[in-house]
Amino acid sequence: MNLTAETALAHRLADAAGEAIRPHFRSAVEAERKGDSTPVTIADRAAEEAMRRILTAEFPQDGIHGEEFGVSEGRSGRQWVLDPIDGTTAFLSGRPIFGTLIALLVDGFPVLGMIDQPILGERWLGVAGAPTTFNGKPVKTRACRDLSDAALATTGPQYFSQEEGDVFMALAAKTDHKRMIMGGDCYNYGLLASGFLDVVCEAGLKLHDYAALVPVVEGAGGTMCDWNGDPLHGGSGGHVLALGDSARLEDVLEAMGGHHHH
Amino acid sequence: MNLTAETALAHRLADAAGEAIRPHFRSAVEAERKGDSTPVTIADRAAEEAMRRILTAEFPQDGIHGEEFGVSEGRSGRQWVLDPIDGTTAFLSGRPIFGTLIALLVDGFPVLGMIDQPILGERWLGVAGAPTTFNGKPVKTRACRDLSDAALATTGPQYFSQEEGDVFMALAAKTDHKRMIMGGDCYNYGLLASGFLDVVCEAGLKLHDYAALVPVVEGAGGTMCDWNGDPLHGGSGGHVLALGDSARLEDVLEAMGGHHHH
Repeated sequence: MNLTAETALAHRLADAAGEAIRPHFRSAVEAERKGDSTPVTIADRAAEEAMRRILTAEFPQDGIHGEEFGVSEGRSGRQWVLDPIDGTTAFLSGRPIFGTLIALLVDGFPVLGMIDQPILGERWLGVAGAPTTFNGKPVKTRACRDLSDAALATTGPQYFSQEEGDVFMALAAKTDHKRMIMGGDCYNYGLLASGFLDVVCEAGLKLHDYAALVPVVEGAGGTMCDWNGDPLHGGSGGHVLALGDSARLEDVLEAMGGHHHH
Repeated sequence: MNLTAETALAHRLADAAGEAIRPHFRSAVEAERKGDSTPVTIADRAAEEAMRRILTAEFPQDGIHGEEFGVSEGRSGRQWVLDPIDGTTAFLSGRPIFGTLIALLVDGFPVLGMIDQPILGERWLGVAGAPTTFNGKPVKTRACRDLSDAALATTGPQYFSQEEGDVFMALAAKTDHKRMIMGGDCYNYGLLASGFLDVVCEAGLKLHDYAALVPVVEGAGGTMCDWNGDPLHGGSGGHVLALGDSARLEDVLEAMGGHHHH
Protein backbone atom coordinates (compact mmCIF):
# COMPACT_ATOMS: atom_id res chain seq x y z
CA MET A 1 0.00 0.00 0.00
CA ASN A 2 1.47 3.32 -1.10
CA LEU A 3 0.42 6.04 1.34
CA THR A 4 2.65 8.86 0.12
CA ALA A 5 -0.23 11.18 -0.73
CA GLU A 6 -2.08 10.32 2.49
CA THR A 7 1.05 10.93 4.58
CA ALA A 8 1.60 14.33 2.98
CA LEU A 9 -2.04 15.14 3.67
CA ALA A 10 -1.80 14.06 7.31
CA HIS A 11 1.07 16.52 7.77
CA ARG A 12 -1.09 19.28 6.31
CA LEU A 13 -4.01 18.27 8.56
CA ALA A 14 -1.81 18.48 11.65
CA ASP A 15 -0.35 21.80 10.51
CA ALA A 16 -3.86 23.20 10.07
CA ALA A 17 -5.02 21.86 13.45
CA GLY A 18 -1.97 23.34 15.17
CA GLU A 19 -2.62 26.75 13.63
CA ALA A 20 -6.17 26.61 14.98
CA ILE A 21 -5.11 25.46 18.45
CA ARG A 22 -2.06 27.58 19.26
CA PRO A 23 -3.86 30.95 19.67
CA HIS A 24 -6.07 29.39 22.38
CA PHE A 25 -3.29 27.80 24.45
CA ARG A 26 -2.88 29.56 27.81
CA SER A 27 -5.39 32.26 26.84
CA ALA A 28 -8.72 33.46 28.23
CA VAL A 29 -8.66 30.95 31.01
CA GLU A 30 -11.64 32.25 32.97
CA ALA A 31 -13.98 31.94 30.01
CA GLU A 32 -12.84 28.37 29.45
CA ARG A 33 -14.57 27.33 32.63
CA LYS A 34 -18.05 28.34 31.58
CA GLY A 35 -19.71 25.38 29.97
CA ASP A 36 -20.59 25.37 26.35
CA SER A 37 -19.09 28.07 24.15
CA THR A 38 -15.65 27.92 25.72
CA PRO A 39 -12.25 28.60 24.16
CA VAL A 40 -11.32 24.94 24.54
CA THR A 41 -14.41 24.04 22.60
CA ILE A 42 -13.53 26.76 20.12
CA ALA A 43 -10.03 25.34 19.77
CA ASP A 44 -11.32 21.79 19.45
CA ARG A 45 -13.95 22.74 16.92
CA ALA A 46 -11.75 25.10 14.93
CA ALA A 47 -9.07 22.42 14.67
CA GLU A 48 -11.47 19.70 13.57
CA GLU A 49 -13.19 22.04 11.11
CA ALA A 50 -9.85 22.98 9.57
CA MET A 51 -9.01 19.30 9.11
CA ARG A 52 -12.45 18.44 7.73
CA ARG A 53 -12.25 21.27 5.18
CA ILE A 54 -9.01 19.88 3.78
CA LEU A 55 -10.23 16.28 3.77
CA THR A 56 -13.54 17.12 2.09
CA ALA A 57 -11.76 19.04 -0.64
CA GLU A 58 -9.07 16.49 -1.33
CA PHE A 59 -10.53 13.06 -0.51
CA PRO A 60 -14.29 13.60 -0.88
CA GLN A 61 -14.90 9.84 -1.09
CA ASP A 62 -13.38 9.14 2.33
CA GLY A 63 -15.37 8.96 5.54
CA ILE A 64 -14.55 11.16 8.53
CA HIS A 65 -14.99 10.24 12.20
CA GLY A 66 -14.21 13.22 14.39
CA GLU A 67 -14.53 13.69 18.13
CA GLU A 68 -16.40 16.96 17.80
CA PHE A 69 -18.54 16.58 14.67
CA GLY A 70 -19.22 12.86 14.55
CA VAL A 71 -19.23 10.56 11.56
CA SER A 72 -19.57 11.44 7.86
CA GLU A 73 -19.94 8.25 5.90
CA GLY A 74 -17.64 7.73 2.91
CA ARG A 75 -17.76 5.56 -0.21
CA SER A 76 -14.09 4.48 -0.39
CA GLY A 77 -13.76 2.00 2.46
CA ARG A 78 -11.40 4.53 4.03
CA GLN A 79 -12.09 6.61 7.12
CA TRP A 80 -10.12 9.43 8.72
CA VAL A 81 -10.38 9.42 12.51
CA LEU A 82 -9.68 12.78 14.14
CA ASP A 83 -9.23 13.94 17.73
CA PRO A 84 -8.35 17.62 17.52
CA ILE A 85 -7.25 17.84 21.18
CA ASP A 86 -6.53 14.61 23.04
CA GLY A 87 -5.84 15.75 26.60
CA THR A 88 -8.32 18.56 26.99
CA THR A 89 -7.62 18.83 30.70
CA ALA A 90 -3.89 19.18 30.04
CA PHE A 91 -4.64 21.80 27.38
CA LEU A 92 -6.83 23.74 29.81
CA SER A 93 -4.12 23.58 32.48
CA GLY A 94 -1.50 25.05 30.16
CA ARG A 95 0.51 21.86 29.80
CA PRO A 96 2.10 21.38 26.39
CA ILE A 97 1.73 17.59 26.43
CA PHE A 98 -1.72 17.17 24.85
CA GLY A 99 -1.93 16.16 21.17
CA THR A 100 -3.83 16.20 17.92
CA LEU A 101 -4.56 12.65 16.72
CA ILE A 102 -5.06 11.75 13.08
CA ALA A 103 -5.61 8.19 11.84
CA LEU A 104 -6.50 6.67 8.48
CA LEU A 105 -8.44 3.41 8.64
CA VAL A 106 -8.73 1.17 5.59
CA ASP A 107 -11.52 -1.37 5.97
CA GLY A 108 -11.46 -0.54 9.68
CA PHE A 109 -7.75 -1.18 10.12
CA PRO A 110 -5.48 1.76 11.08
CA VAL A 111 -2.75 2.08 8.43
CA LEU A 112 -1.57 5.59 9.28
CA GLY A 113 -1.41 7.39 12.61
CA MET A 114 -0.08 10.74 13.74
CA ILE A 115 0.40 12.28 17.20
CA ASP A 116 1.11 16.00 16.91
CA GLN A 117 2.05 18.33 19.77
CA PRO A 118 1.49 21.75 18.23
CA ILE A 119 3.04 23.87 20.99
CA LEU A 120 6.36 22.01 21.07
CA GLY A 121 6.44 21.20 17.36
CA GLU A 122 6.70 17.47 18.06
CA ARG A 123 5.16 14.95 15.67
CA TRP A 124 5.12 11.15 15.67
CA LEU A 125 4.08 9.45 12.43
CA GLY A 126 3.35 5.75 11.97
CA VAL A 127 2.57 4.23 8.57
CA ALA A 128 1.93 0.51 8.05
CA GLY A 129 5.06 -1.18 6.77
CA ALA A 130 7.43 1.69 7.59
CA PRO A 131 9.34 2.67 10.72
CA THR A 132 7.67 5.21 12.97
CA THR A 133 9.28 8.65 12.88
CA PHE A 134 9.54 11.51 15.36
CA ASN A 135 9.96 14.82 13.56
CA GLY A 136 11.09 12.86 10.51
CA LYS A 137 13.64 10.64 12.24
CA PRO A 138 13.04 6.91 12.86
CA VAL A 139 12.39 5.91 16.47
CA LYS A 140 12.22 2.56 18.20
CA THR A 141 10.75 1.31 21.43
CA ARG A 142 13.28 0.02 23.96
CA ALA A 143 13.82 -3.48 25.28
CA CYS A 144 12.44 -4.31 28.73
CA ARG A 145 14.05 -7.53 29.94
CA ASP A 146 12.05 -7.76 33.16
CA LEU A 147 8.66 -6.28 34.03
CA SER A 148 10.07 -5.20 37.40
CA ASP A 149 12.22 -2.66 35.48
CA ALA A 150 9.31 -1.29 33.49
CA ALA A 151 8.26 2.36 33.54
CA LEU A 152 4.45 2.33 33.52
CA ALA A 153 2.27 5.29 32.60
CA THR A 154 -1.41 6.21 32.73
CA THR A 155 -3.24 9.51 32.48
CA GLY A 156 -4.75 9.20 35.93
CA PRO A 157 -6.53 6.86 38.33
CA GLN A 158 -9.64 9.02 38.06
CA TYR A 159 -10.28 7.48 34.64
CA PHE A 160 -10.61 3.96 36.06
CA SER A 161 -13.66 2.33 37.63
CA GLN A 162 -13.00 0.66 40.96
CA GLU A 163 -12.51 -2.71 39.25
CA GLU A 164 -10.31 -1.28 36.52
CA GLY A 165 -8.26 0.53 39.15
CA ASP A 166 -7.65 -2.74 40.97
CA VAL A 167 -6.39 -4.35 37.76
CA PHE A 168 -4.13 -1.36 37.10
CA MET A 169 -2.75 -1.48 40.66
CA ALA A 170 -1.99 -5.19 40.27
CA LEU A 171 0.02 -4.35 37.15
CA ALA A 172 1.70 -1.37 38.84
CA ALA A 173 2.81 -3.61 41.71
CA LYS A 174 4.85 -5.70 39.23
CA THR A 175 6.56 -2.74 37.53
CA ASP A 176 9.17 -0.25 38.79
CA HIS A 177 7.06 1.85 41.13
CA LYS A 178 9.66 4.64 41.24
CA ARG A 179 9.38 5.16 37.50
CA MET A 180 5.58 5.24 37.28
CA ILE A 181 4.27 8.28 35.44
CA MET A 182 0.83 9.87 35.76
CA GLY A 183 -0.75 12.24 33.27
CA GLY A 184 0.10 12.53 29.62
CA ASP A 185 -2.76 11.25 27.43
CA CYS A 186 -1.55 10.46 23.88
CA TYR A 187 1.88 11.93 24.62
CA ASN A 188 2.77 8.83 26.68
CA TYR A 189 2.31 6.61 23.60
CA GLY A 190 4.69 8.83 21.64
CA LEU A 191 7.25 8.62 24.43
CA LEU A 192 6.83 4.83 24.49
CA ALA A 193 7.42 4.72 20.70
CA SER A 194 10.59 6.76 21.26
CA GLY A 195 11.87 4.34 23.92
CA PHE A 196 11.29 6.38 27.10
CA LEU A 197 8.40 4.41 28.62
CA ASP A 198 7.70 0.66 28.65
CA VAL A 199 3.98 0.18 29.29
CA VAL A 200 0.90 2.39 29.05
CA CYS A 201 -2.35 1.06 30.51
CA GLU A 202 -5.64 2.94 30.20
CA ALA A 203 -9.40 2.48 30.25
CA GLY A 204 -12.29 4.34 28.68
CA LEU A 205 -10.52 5.20 25.43
CA LYS A 206 -12.67 5.67 22.34
CA LEU A 207 -11.74 4.98 18.71
CA HIS A 208 -10.62 8.59 18.20
CA ASP A 209 -8.38 8.27 21.29
CA TYR A 210 -6.51 5.14 20.21
CA ALA A 211 -6.75 4.64 16.42
CA ALA A 212 -3.80 6.93 15.66
CA LEU A 213 -1.69 5.37 18.40
CA VAL A 214 -1.66 1.89 16.85
CA PRO A 215 0.52 2.60 13.77
CA VAL A 216 2.81 4.86 15.86
CA VAL A 217 3.47 2.25 18.54
CA GLU A 218 3.58 -0.79 16.25
CA GLY A 219 5.78 0.90 13.64
CA ALA A 220 8.29 1.58 16.42
CA GLY A 221 8.40 -2.10 17.39
CA GLY A 222 5.79 -2.11 20.14
CA THR A 223 2.41 -3.72 20.61
CA MET A 224 -1.05 -2.22 21.06
CA CYS A 225 -3.83 -4.45 22.32
CA ASP A 226 -6.71 -4.61 24.74
CA TRP A 227 -6.53 -5.93 28.31
CA ASN A 228 -6.95 -9.47 27.00
CA GLY A 229 -4.04 -9.14 24.60
CA ASP A 230 -6.41 -9.02 21.63
CA PRO A 231 -6.25 -6.41 18.85
CA LEU A 232 -8.21 -3.29 19.74
CA HIS A 233 -11.75 -3.29 18.46
CA GLY A 234 -15.08 -1.68 19.25
CA GLY A 235 -15.80 -4.27 21.94
CA SER A 236 -12.57 -3.72 23.88
CA GLY A 237 -14.37 -1.42 26.28
CA GLY A 238 -11.66 1.17 25.77
CA HIS A 239 -9.21 -1.03 27.67
CA VAL A 240 -5.92 -0.16 26.01
CA LEU A 241 -2.44 -1.55 26.57
CA ALA A 242 0.73 -0.37 24.85
CA LEU A 243 4.00 -2.25 25.28
CA GLY A 244 7.38 -1.15 24.03
CA ASP A 245 8.74 -4.69 24.29
CA SER A 246 6.23 -7.21 22.92
CA ALA A 247 8.09 -9.99 24.73
CA ARG A 248 6.62 -8.72 28.00
CA LEU A 249 2.99 -9.13 26.91
CA GLU A 250 2.39 -12.41 28.75
CA ASP A 251 3.96 -10.98 31.92
CA VAL A 252 1.74 -7.90 31.71
CA LEU A 253 -1.45 -9.92 31.14
CA GLU A 254 -0.53 -12.25 33.99
CA ALA A 255 0.12 -9.30 36.32
CA MET A 256 -3.30 -7.93 35.41
CA GLY A 257 -4.99 -11.08 36.61
CA GLY A 258 -4.52 -13.40 33.66
CA HIS A 259 -8.22 -13.60 32.96
CA HIS A 260 -10.50 -11.92 30.49
CA HIS A 261 -11.77 -8.41 31.19
CA HIS A 262 -14.88 -7.02 29.58
CA MET B 1 15.42 44.18 50.75
CA ASN B 2 17.16 44.82 47.44
CA LEU B 3 17.74 41.52 45.66
CA THR B 4 18.84 42.80 42.26
CA ALA B 5 22.25 41.11 42.40
CA GLU B 6 20.78 37.88 43.74
CA THR B 7 18.11 37.85 41.04
CA ALA B 8 20.70 38.29 38.32
CA LEU B 9 22.71 35.50 39.88
CA ALA B 10 19.69 33.18 40.04
CA HIS B 11 19.21 33.64 36.30
CA ARG B 12 22.85 32.69 35.72
CA LEU B 13 22.49 29.65 37.99
CA ALA B 14 19.46 28.45 36.04
CA ASP B 15 21.24 29.08 32.74
CA ALA B 16 24.22 27.02 33.92
CA ALA B 17 22.00 24.20 35.19
CA GLY B 18 20.08 24.12 31.92
CA GLU B 19 23.30 23.87 29.92
CA ALA B 20 24.32 20.89 32.05
CA ILE B 21 20.92 19.19 31.77
CA ARG B 22 19.94 19.61 28.12
CA PRO B 23 22.53 17.22 26.59
CA HIS B 24 21.18 14.40 28.81
CA PHE B 25 17.49 14.86 28.00
CA ARG B 26 16.14 11.96 25.90
CA SER B 27 19.62 10.46 25.55
CA ALA B 28 21.23 7.12 26.47
CA VAL B 29 18.05 5.85 28.00
CA GLU B 30 19.16 2.26 28.52
CA ALA B 31 22.14 3.30 30.64
CA GLU B 32 19.85 5.45 32.80
CA ARG B 33 18.25 2.35 34.20
CA LYS B 34 21.36 0.88 35.73
CA GLY B 35 21.64 2.09 39.27
CA ASP B 36 24.34 4.43 40.35
CA SER B 37 26.39 6.19 37.66
CA THR B 38 23.43 6.95 35.43
CA PRO B 39 22.89 9.83 33.04
CA VAL B 40 20.18 11.22 35.27
CA THR B 41 22.62 11.27 38.12
CA ILE B 42 25.20 12.79 35.80
CA ALA B 43 22.71 15.47 34.74
CA ASP B 44 21.63 16.09 38.33
CA ARG B 45 25.20 16.27 39.59
CA ALA B 46 26.56 18.28 36.69
CA ALA B 47 23.76 20.83 37.10
CA GLU B 48 24.23 21.18 40.86
CA GLU B 49 28.02 21.39 40.48
CA ALA B 50 27.68 24.13 37.89
CA MET B 51 25.45 26.12 40.25
CA ARG B 52 27.71 25.52 43.26
CA ARG B 53 30.78 26.71 41.32
CA ILE B 54 29.10 30.03 40.55
CA LEU B 55 27.76 30.48 44.09
CA THR B 56 31.07 29.65 45.75
CA ALA B 57 32.89 32.14 43.53
CA GLU B 58 30.42 35.00 43.91
CA PHE B 59 28.79 34.61 47.32
CA PRO B 60 31.37 32.62 49.31
CA GLN B 61 29.75 33.62 52.62
CA ASP B 62 26.39 32.05 51.74
CA GLY B 63 25.38 28.53 52.68
CA ILE B 64 24.29 26.01 50.06
CA HIS B 65 21.73 23.25 50.52
CA GLY B 66 21.60 21.06 47.44
CA GLU B 67 19.68 17.86 46.75
CA GLU B 68 22.76 16.04 45.44
CA PHE B 69 25.66 17.37 47.52
CA GLY B 70 24.02 18.24 50.81
CA VAL B 71 24.62 21.26 53.01
CA SER B 72 27.58 23.64 53.04
CA GLU B 73 27.25 25.95 56.02
CA GLY B 74 27.56 29.69 55.39
CA ARG B 75 28.35 32.70 57.56
CA SER B 76 25.88 35.22 56.13
CA GLY B 77 22.51 34.01 57.45
CA ARG B 78 21.67 33.32 53.81
CA GLN B 79 21.28 29.91 52.21
CA TRP B 80 20.76 28.88 48.58
CA VAL B 81 18.54 25.83 48.22
CA LEU B 82 19.02 23.92 44.97
CA ASP B 83 17.19 21.05 43.30
CA PRO B 84 18.90 20.54 39.95
CA ILE B 85 16.13 18.29 38.58
CA ASP B 86 12.77 18.26 40.35
CA GLY B 87 10.79 15.55 38.55
CA THR B 88 13.49 12.97 37.87
CA THR B 89 10.93 10.43 36.70
CA ALA B 90 9.51 12.92 34.20
CA PHE B 91 13.05 13.74 33.03
CA LEU B 92 13.80 10.04 32.56
CA SER B 93 10.58 9.55 30.63
CA GLY B 94 11.41 12.31 28.18
CA ARG B 95 8.76 14.74 29.43
CA PRO B 96 9.74 18.39 29.28
CA ILE B 97 7.80 19.35 32.42
CA PHE B 98 10.45 18.78 35.12
CA GLY B 99 12.28 21.78 36.56
CA THR B 100 15.38 23.21 38.16
CA LEU B 101 14.54 24.83 41.51
CA ILE B 102 16.58 27.64 43.03
CA ALA B 103 15.69 29.40 46.29
CA LEU B 104 17.40 31.96 48.48
CA LEU B 105 16.54 31.78 52.18
CA VAL B 106 17.35 34.67 54.51
CA ASP B 107 17.23 33.61 58.15
CA GLY B 108 15.35 30.54 56.94
CA PHE B 109 12.68 32.47 55.07
CA PRO B 110 12.47 32.08 51.26
CA VAL B 111 12.82 35.53 49.68
CA LEU B 112 13.61 34.44 46.13
CA GLY B 113 12.45 31.40 44.17
CA MET B 114 12.89 30.24 40.61
CA ILE B 115 11.33 27.37 38.64
CA ASP B 116 13.21 26.81 35.38
CA GLN B 117 12.21 24.41 32.59
CA PRO B 118 15.39 24.20 30.53
CA ILE B 119 13.99 22.27 27.55
CA LEU B 120 11.09 24.64 26.89
CA GLY B 121 12.91 27.78 27.99
CA GLU B 122 10.26 28.59 30.59
CA ARG B 123 11.17 30.36 33.82
CA TRP B 124 9.07 31.52 36.76
CA LEU B 125 10.71 33.96 39.19
CA GLY B 126 9.34 35.07 42.55
CA VAL B 127 11.03 37.73 44.67
CA ALA B 128 9.64 38.92 48.00
CA GLY B 129 7.77 42.20 47.53
CA ALA B 130 7.57 41.98 43.73
CA PRO B 131 5.13 40.33 41.33
CA THR B 132 6.05 36.87 40.11
CA THR B 133 7.16 36.76 36.50
CA PHE B 134 7.07 34.10 33.77
CA ASN B 135 9.80 34.68 31.22
CA GLY B 136 9.99 38.26 32.45
CA LYS B 137 6.27 39.08 32.32
CA PRO B 138 4.14 39.42 35.46
CA VAL B 139 1.70 36.59 36.13
CA LYS B 140 -1.19 36.21 38.58
CA THR B 141 -3.11 33.30 40.00
CA ARG B 142 -6.78 33.18 39.06
CA ALA B 143 -9.85 33.56 41.23
CA CYS B 144 -11.71 30.42 42.24
CA ARG B 145 -15.14 31.37 43.56
CA ASP B 146 -16.19 27.86 44.50
CA LEU B 147 -14.05 24.84 45.36
CA SER B 148 -16.32 22.69 43.18
CA ASP B 149 -14.89 24.57 40.15
CA ALA B 150 -11.28 24.06 41.21
CA ALA B 151 -8.70 22.29 39.04
CA LEU B 152 -6.62 20.19 41.44
CA ALA B 153 -3.20 18.75 40.66
CA THR B 154 -0.77 16.32 42.24
CA THR B 155 2.23 14.45 40.88
CA GLY B 156 0.73 11.06 41.57
CA PRO B 157 -1.12 8.95 44.13
CA GLN B 158 1.97 6.74 44.46
CA TYR B 159 3.59 9.50 46.52
CA PHE B 160 0.92 9.32 49.23
CA SER B 161 0.69 6.93 52.15
CA GLN B 162 -2.68 5.24 52.55
CA GLU B 163 -3.76 7.88 55.08
CA GLU B 164 -2.45 10.77 52.98
CA GLY B 165 -4.21 9.32 49.95
CA ASP B 166 -7.50 9.29 51.84
CA VAL B 167 -7.08 12.96 52.73
CA PHE B 168 -6.25 13.80 49.12
CA MET B 169 -9.28 11.88 47.84
CA ALA B 170 -11.50 13.75 50.29
CA LEU B 171 -10.20 17.01 48.82
CA ALA B 172 -10.50 15.72 45.25
CA ALA B 173 -14.15 14.84 45.86
CA LYS B 174 -14.90 18.53 46.56
CA THR B 175 -13.11 19.87 43.45
CA ASP B 176 -13.94 19.58 39.74
CA HIS B 177 -13.07 15.94 39.10
CA LYS B 178 -13.00 16.44 35.33
CA ARG B 179 -10.24 19.01 35.63
CA MET B 180 -7.96 17.03 37.97
CA ILE B 181 -4.39 16.75 36.70
CA MET B 182 -1.84 14.08 37.59
CA GLY B 183 1.90 14.37 37.11
CA GLY B 184 3.89 17.56 36.87
CA ASP B 185 6.09 18.06 39.97
CA CYS B 186 7.20 21.70 40.30
CA TYR B 187 5.70 22.58 36.92
CA ASN B 188 2.20 22.48 38.46
CA TYR B 189 3.12 25.27 40.88
CA GLY B 190 4.30 27.40 37.96
CA LEU B 191 1.04 26.77 36.13
CA LEU B 192 -0.88 27.66 39.30
CA ALA B 193 1.08 30.93 39.55
CA SER B 194 0.14 31.65 35.93
CA GLY B 195 -3.55 31.07 36.63
CA PHE B 196 -4.09 27.67 34.97
CA LEU B 197 -4.57 25.51 38.08
CA ASP B 198 -6.30 26.27 41.39
CA VAL B 199 -4.94 23.85 43.99
CA VAL B 200 -1.86 21.62 44.25
CA CYS B 201 -1.74 19.11 47.08
CA GLU B 202 1.31 16.92 47.75
CA ALA B 203 3.05 14.92 50.43
CA GLY B 204 6.67 13.93 51.03
CA LEU B 205 8.20 17.15 49.74
CA LYS B 206 11.57 18.19 51.14
CA LEU B 207 12.95 21.69 51.62
CA HIS B 208 14.67 21.60 48.22
CA ASP B 209 11.34 20.58 46.61
CA TYR B 210 9.24 23.41 48.01
CA ALA B 211 11.45 26.35 49.08
CA ALA B 212 11.59 27.86 45.57
CA LEU B 213 7.86 27.43 45.07
CA VAL B 214 6.87 29.73 47.95
CA PRO B 215 7.99 33.08 46.46
CA VAL B 216 6.71 32.05 43.01
CA VAL B 217 3.21 31.18 44.22
CA GLU B 218 2.88 33.95 46.81
CA GLY B 219 4.26 36.65 44.51
CA ALA B 220 1.53 35.70 42.03
CA GLY B 221 -1.20 36.18 44.66
CA GLY B 222 -1.49 32.59 45.91
CA THR B 223 -0.84 30.86 49.20
CA MET B 224 1.63 28.12 50.12
CA CYS B 225 1.10 26.28 53.39
CA ASP B 226 1.06 22.85 54.98
CA TRP B 227 -2.00 20.65 55.36
CA ASN B 228 -2.92 22.52 58.55
CA GLY B 229 -2.83 25.89 56.81
CA ASP B 230 0.39 26.80 58.62
CA PRO B 231 3.47 28.22 56.90
CA LEU B 232 5.75 25.47 55.61
CA HIS B 233 8.49 24.48 58.02
CA GLY B 234 10.70 21.50 58.73
CA GLY B 235 7.95 19.87 60.80
CA SER B 236 5.31 20.00 58.08
CA GLY B 237 6.07 16.41 57.08
CA GLY B 238 6.36 17.50 53.49
CA HIS B 239 2.60 18.11 53.37
CA VAL B 240 2.33 20.95 50.90
CA LEU B 241 -0.69 22.90 49.70
CA ALA B 242 -0.69 25.61 47.05
CA LEU B 243 -3.79 27.70 46.41
CA GLY B 244 -4.26 30.18 43.63
CA ASP B 245 -7.12 31.87 45.45
CA SER B 246 -6.32 32.31 49.14
CA ALA B 247 -10.01 32.83 49.88
CA ARG B 248 -10.55 29.09 49.35
CA LEU B 249 -8.11 28.03 52.10
CA GLU B 250 -10.77 27.30 54.72
CA ASP B 251 -12.80 25.29 52.20
CA VAL B 252 -9.74 23.26 51.25
CA LEU B 253 -8.78 22.54 54.87
CA GLU B 254 -12.35 21.60 55.69
CA ALA B 255 -12.51 19.25 52.68
CA MET B 256 -9.31 17.61 53.90
CA GLY B 257 -10.89 16.72 57.19
CA GLY B 258 -10.64 19.94 59.09
CA HIS B 259 -8.27 18.54 61.67
CA HIS B 260 -4.53 18.61 62.14
CA HIS B 261 -2.30 16.26 60.15
CA HIS B 262 1.18 15.34 61.29
